[in-house]
Amino acid sequence: MTQRALDRLLRPQTIAVFGGREAHRVIEQCDRMGFGGDVWPVHPKLEEVHGRRCYRSILELPAVPDAAFVGVNRMLTLDIVRDLAARGAGGAVCYASGFSEAAGELADGADLQRRLLEAAGDMPILGPNCYGLINALDGALLWPDQHGMQRVDRGVAILTQSSNIALNMTMQTRGLPIAYLVTVGNQAQTSLSSVAYALLEDPRVTAVGLHVEGFGSLPALQELALRARELKKPVVALKVGKSEQAKRATVSHTASLSGSDAVADAVLGRLGIGRVGSLPELLETLKLLHVAGPLTGNAISSMSCSGGEASLMADAAVGRAVEFRALRPGQVAPLRLALGEMVTLSNPLDYHTFAWGDLGRQTDAFTAMFEGGYALNLVVLDFPRTDRCDATDWTTTVDAIVAASASTGGLAGVVATLPENMPEDRAVGLMTRGVVPFCGIFETLAATEIASRIGREWSVPPGPRLLDVPQVEGEIETLDETHAKAALSAFGFPVPAGFVANSPQEAMERSDELGYPVALKGLAIEHKTEAGAVALNLKDATAVFDAATSMNGTKAFLVEKMVEHSVAELIIGATRDPVFGLTLTVGSGGILVELLEDSAILSLPTTRTAITETISRLRIGKLINGYRGRPKGDLEAVVVAVAAAADYVVKNAAHLEELDINPLMVLPENKGVVAVDALIRRRR
Amino acid sequence: MTQRALDRLLRPQTIAVFGGREAHRVIEQCDRMGFGGDVWPVHPKLEEVHGRRCYRSILELPAVPDAAFVGVNRMLTLDIVRDLAARGAGGAVCYASGFSEAAGELADGADLQRRLLEAAGDMPILGPNCYGLINALDGALLWPDQHGMQRVDRGVAILTQSSNIALNMTMQTRGLPIAYLVTVGNQAQTSLSSVAYALLEDPRVTAVGLHVEGFGSLPALQELALRARELKKPVVALKVGKSEQAKRATVSHTASLSGSDAVADAVLGRLGIGRVGSLPELLETLKLLHVAGPLTGNAISSMSCSGGEASLMADAAVGRAVEFRALRPGQVAPLRLALGEMVTLSNPLDYHTFAWGDLGRQTDAFTAMFEGGYALNLVVLDFPRTDRCDATDWTTTVDAIVAASASTGGLAGVVATLPENMPEDRAVGLMTRGVVPFCGIFETLAATEIASRIGREWSVPPGPRLLDVPQVEGEIETLDETHAKAALSAFGFPVPAGFVANSPQEAMERSDELGYPVALKGLAIEHKTEAGAVALNLKDATAVFDAATSMNGTKAFLVEKMVEHSVAELIIGATRDPVFGLTLTVGSGGILVELLEDSAILSLPTTRTAITETISRLRIGKLINGYRGRPKGDLEAVVVAVAAAADYVVKNAAHLEELDINPLMVLPENKGVVAVDALIRRRR
Repeated sequence: MTQRALDRLLRPQTIAVFGGREAHRVIEQCDRMGFGGDVWPVHPKLEEVHGRRCYRSILELPAVPDAAFVGVNRMLTLDIVRDLAARGAGGAVCYASGFSEAAGELADGADLQRRLLEAAGDMPILGPNCYGLINALDGALLWPDQHGMQRVDRGVAILTQSSNIALNMTMQTRGLPIAYLVTVGNQAQTSLSSVAYALLEDPRVTAVGLHVEGFGSLPALQELALRARELKKPVVALKVGKSEQAKRATVSHTASLSGSDAVADAVLGRLGIGRVGSLPELLETLKLLHVAGPLTGNAISSMSCSGGEASLMADAAVGRAVEFRALRPGQVAPLRLALGEMVTLSNPLDYHTFAWGDLGRQTDAFTAMFEGGYALNLVVLDFPRTDRCDATDWTTTVDAIVAASASTGGLAGVVATLPENMPEDRAVGLMTRGVVPFCGIFETLAATEIASRIGREWSVPPGPRLLDVPQVEGEIETLDETHAKAALSAFGFPVPAGFVANSPQEAMERSDELGYPVALKGLAIEHKTEAGAVALNLKDATAVFDAATSMNGTKAFLVEKMVEHSVAELIIGATRDPVFGLTLTVGSGGILVELLEDSAILSLPTTRTAITETISRLRIGKLINGYRGRPKGDLEAVVVAVAAAADYVVKNAAHLEELDINPLMVLPENKGVVAVDALIRRRR
Repeated sequence: MTQRALDRLLRPQTIAVFGGREAHRVIEQCDRMGFGGDVWPVHPKLEEVHGRRCYRSILELPAVPDAAFVGVNRMLTLDIVRDLAARGAGGAVCYASGFSEAAGELADGADLQRRLLEAAGDMPILGPNCYGLINALDGALLWPDQHGMQRVDRGVAILTQSSNIALNMTMQTRGLPIAYLVTVGNQAQTSLSSVAYALLEDPRVTAVGLHVEGFGSLPALQELALRARELKKPVVALKVGKSEQAKRATVSHTASLSGSDAVADAVLGRLGIGRVGSLPELLETLKLLHVAGPLTGNAISSMSCSGGEASLMADAAVGRAVEFRALRPGQVAPLRLALGEMVTLSNPLDYHTFAWGDLGRQTDAFTAMFEGGYALNLVVLDFPRTDRCDATDWTTTVDAIVAASASTGGLAGVVATLPENMPEDRAVGLMTRGVVPFCGIFETLAATEIASRIGREWSVPPGPRLLDVPQVEGEIETLDETHAKAALSAFGFPVPAGFVANSPQEAMERSDELGYPVALKGLAIEHKTEAGAVALNLKDATAVFDAATSMNGTKAFLVEKMVEHSVAELIIGATRDPVFGLTLTVGSGGILVELLEDSAILSLPTTRTAITETISRLRIGKLINGYRGRPKGDLEAVVVAVAAAADYVVKNAAHLEELDINPLMVLPENKGVVAVDALIRRRR
């Protein structure tokens, strides 16, 4: 199916509405927002809906509608969508539920969704099971409920699968200008990524926020990320599914698959899509990105009237990739001049209240700080509640911040430690003057970290496209250790010297050529260790013969030179995620796999640089780099081996189900690495 | 110094105010809050302050004031405090700064603070360097600024070292009734703990929240915790100092010492003091505790109108000690009846909008859920902004929640996903009806976890008092390995069989009696391994002699039986924290100490139960419990050894500076444990 562009649906000039109460609401909201186009209710019986004359059918409409809100039951929805498509409408919002999302409870849910898709043909539809959209730039609403938004000239686009969460976000009082709010429900036809892609093209959209339960399509997500980078409009996502419980709730309610959380992290990171942890973080990050876009670094400053706030700031930065970088020598004298002798100069800075209410001194102090070359300069400032207090002096402080920002070119943000201490009118005023109004310390530092990550990602050329090879059907087969090692070896992956013997006699005779000690394993035996089919460290021919003989019923043996004196043991694995496809896992292996829980995901294809960085982030990386005076491991060989495994995965992507190399023995520097055991599962 | 009770300072009938602008403000605020007592300004020149006739001096006052606000410079503060004490005043707030907190910048800061203490004698003072207090129960203020509070009949007490953070918290719009807000500044005389202790005694106080940079005194904190438990009034703390930067900011600004963060965690946990991570969490936790006190368990339920919110809830619980426990079989039928066939029944529950606006069906649904025996039943509900929307249906939902809570006795909370979507009037209304109004999902689950932890802690008898032995002065000496092991051995701590030899010859001769292999170490040598003074796994007499001979210049040797076949290696250590004193650390030892970063703190004295629980929480606990089919370690012997180390520390507390047993080799079940190396540093 080739979809027509989503333009008419997202920015309609004419809107047709179907249904009763919900249709009434759509018209009411279009009127409230001052929609300049036409809204046409269609109803078989009613004479008028919210003061508009009703049309009896789609055919009676004065023209082909750009967009339609279909607020009727699920069976009628099919008929209307079919008629709209036939008349050439630009798109439709399907409000009804009872489709795939309810397949567990309604026997015909999935089938009905399939029929809805057929009915729509190449006409774009949002949903089913969704509220639709609010276009606050043009005042065009396909939205069956009240909401808290107002018209804006430019702003961010927010997309979500959850209509209720969308509704809640319209009620935010944080000063965030929302240009578009779109819900996509079941994403039966039009995915969240493709709507986001279309919204990026609107020049009035500054950034995009996604609340995602399951990404429908990796290629669509990748297209979105690449386009975002081209247009310099950042995308951030609140991806749920950290808990198995969350995953279950997602699957049962929106019929979409959540990928595993660590894989999602790796893939989103690679795509340059910021990942936020909560709804407040989503909104705060979008505010920062709306005002400033991605940050040019992660060095930031903070100023507050109290040491208590400075400490809270410093604490909140722990574990985040942001740095309160020390003051430059050149900042000290002007800060001292502005703040006096009693202030300890540092970052975060407690600038006390000596300059409070004094526009000149405050401006001087902020200017001296903002000249430090920080990517973002934060000023902690909780506004008083105006129903009980006077806030005049706060205006002075804001003026000083704006003046300092203007004269230095330094980006400024005002942080309220309690979200409610950033009143909406203050937030809007700050935004207008180019200052980011932040609600909450933790959310501020989360937003800062994410914006600087996107900036760093965008500062280098994009990597190659993500591996996206559709998997072939077919039965799963497991390669035995010999065949798995042979397959990997063909890609340059180092495996121990060895041979396959078909009798204890042969195993014994050929071991001499190999040299001792050797390891002997029974082939084609599952759970070899538990089955007694592994004998290690055999030191002579007799030991080999005895060990082979004692493995009752074993017909073939793998004999390998023992790998000794390893510095560390790694695991290299590949798994297939239903959404994100094949990725590589690298981590502490051998006995430590679950004990250390020390692993990282590499999206594919990968590079040696990415592999090196990933290993250095692991705990086991410390061991490889020579831990507490112990010998260093052969890091270069590790990187080559991981690259070979990645190469194997990429070349075998269509058939591969799972790869597990564990342990990979890491030998001392210049001695290489060796895979002691390997397993491959693939489709025939 | 014996302090008089703090009652007159905290609940004054008469207040004297000193100074100009700040004194004016104190009177203004007392008037605004309807203070029923007398406020007397004292000023040498002014005729009146804020409409009140001025007295020329303390001696002219009509009576001895219960409390005084001293809003003058630091030098004058000393004189006034001395005069107040002489006349028998009940206490004073010292507003001026420039004392110990500024010792880095002002040469006389520390000395002036000492003189202030002398001037006060046994009269209680708050500060210096603080705003004072707001008593919103009686409308009594010793507070030189505007604020956002109103009179309440009962509520929580909040104490902080930071006046600015106190001011910000008065502006909260979360419906939290604050009975007392107290700032303690430098805590020169009256500590945060002792003020909190006094406030607990007010029957109108329901819970106490602390924002703490440094705990001044462990015994005072312990008294507070014990009294809180007796009175069943929980205490929670926001303890800053997670970052080294935060620690520096704290030291330089409040001249108090922050203990290390992990130690603070352990000690606060043991005392049953909840630890929150942010200001919003502090306020949300206090709300829950104000309404319900500590929770009786950690099994909770959640209901929301959308699966999106259910997923967010489930995600936010990851890593927290709270459980969305599955529905009981008996809940299914009534939930199905109330919600219809299309709802998937689970916890967290997406109850859809089928019952929306229907008081009867909503009440039935909530009732069915609340009957599940959960410690807390959460209903996700974002209120619309009333300036743009109609919120009638939300009232129906609230009524249904209140009805269900009343009929089942189940505790209920309403959670707004965005803090601003819980308007203040709604929050107050919910509180009044016994429902907890929560702002933000993460804060809700943090509060729930903390309230249930306190509940669990209080459900068992309190442990023995914390070890608090003042350290003796004196030079630090380091015991060599032999003496350290002998000292530990006297407490039943298992060390290897061995002997001290004074020559290679003696080492060789006596090794035969010990049995091989043995380990040989040079004594009284620092960094033995690096100095080549350790030889392991010596298999016969010749090897012992050769090894001893090769340790040039070594006069004494420790010869020990090698410890072989260990299952795991532990570290047991003790360190002295400037605030929290001596605590024990247990963790992964040997080569893994820094690699695993796997350790836990045990406060002292401890019990075998606590030791067993602590070890089971460690990663290394998995190894000891038989990891991946490997042999189990002798857990019983580990516990006995840790208990022996704890005993050693307790008995030697006055002199001990540091204890380090690493590694402790854990042998297989029933084979015991052995300390291979040990170090003790102590004061002479």
